[in-house]
Amino acid sequence: MVEPIIFQVVGYQNSGKTTFISKLIAELSKEKWRVITIKHHGHGGQPDLVADKDTSKHSDAGAIASLVEGNGRLILHAEQSSWSLAQQIQLATMLEPDFIIIEGHKKKEFPKVVLLREQDEDRKLLQELENIKAVFYWQENYPELVHSDIPSFQINEEQGLSYILNFLISMRSKAIDAR
Amino acid sequence: MVEPIIFQVVGYQNSGKTTFISKLIAELSKEKWRVITIKHHGHGGQPDLVADKDTSKHSDAGAIASLVEGNGRLILHAEQSSWSLAQQIQLATMLEPDFIIIEGHKKKEFPKVVLLREQDEDRKLLQELENIKAVFYWQENYPELVHSDIPSFQINEEQGLSYILNFLISMRSKAIDAR
Repeated sequence: MVEPIIFQVVGYQNSGKTTFISKLIAELSKEKWRVITIKHHGHGGQPDLVADKDTSKHSDAGAIASLVEGNGRLILHAEQSSWSLAQQIQLATMLEPDFIIIEGHKKKEFPKVVLLREQDEDRKLLQELENIKAVFYWQENYPELVHSDIPSFQINEEQGLSYILNFLISMRSKAIDAR
Repeated sequence: MVEPIIFQVVGYQNSGKTTFISKLIAELSKEKWRVITIKHHGHGGQPDLVADKDTSKHSDAGAIASLVEGNGRLILHAEQSSWSLAQQIQLATMLEPDFIIIEGHKKKEFPKVVLLREQDEDRKLLQELENIKAVFYWQENYPELVHSDIPSFQINEEQGLSYILNFLISMRSKAIDAR
């Protein structure tokens, strides 16, 4: 198995991460690439669990995890005190994806795009993060923020999405060739 | 890592599988054993997916899976045309359980208990299945159905649950010792 390409989409709340990721997924899956997403549950707290009534019973009884499957849909629900991103990646990798796209976890080291909505708080973001492959900004002009050596695009620019898709697919193709 | 002990609880609908499994989980987890359950979604169809709104968006866009985590709860949702039980076991094994308890999948070869509610249809079940470690019956007397070499218990008999727990824990202890 070839290790998947791991890629991050980061930015503050309401910077459009989910929409951006959905566009990436749509384009990649159109070409039959297998994509898995990883994200923190928004707004804190735990994601709801209503997958299956019996699943909740198993969980209440003390099961560390339960898996329910029906007609091709599989839901695995697991609880422990905390999950490292590495554990989550390991679990996702089991499903043999070509790409794992991580929403958030901005401090991590994987190649990433940064979505910038507001000028003031975003300046800090660019200074702190590593391995930024492109910046997407919402305002009409955002040039003074962006390092000259990082490609930057207006959020709805077609060229921006293409740039990232080309980056991802070339990374993946290289990994497959090197196998 | 020591491979987990895989165990099945089978029986027709309304034979009490979920309750029986919950009792097993409660006793095992009380002693700090890690238990994961695997089951088919009841009544056909797909388990509901309302874990996270964004998760559905990723899925709609074509992601093969998405994973969302918050405060120690992790939900992995994946779709493909079908899932073999072997794939489900492999995924569960990643979480390093001591026991994987499978509800249903009666034709599979793992050690199992059979829960018997009705006399007529159940007779067939006992003839067809392999690797039966114990039989639990609902009626007051069910002896003529049960092979003389398979331990049988009334469903609420304390001794029955103890018997299975001892079986499971001794299997697990042996596996750990053999490491």
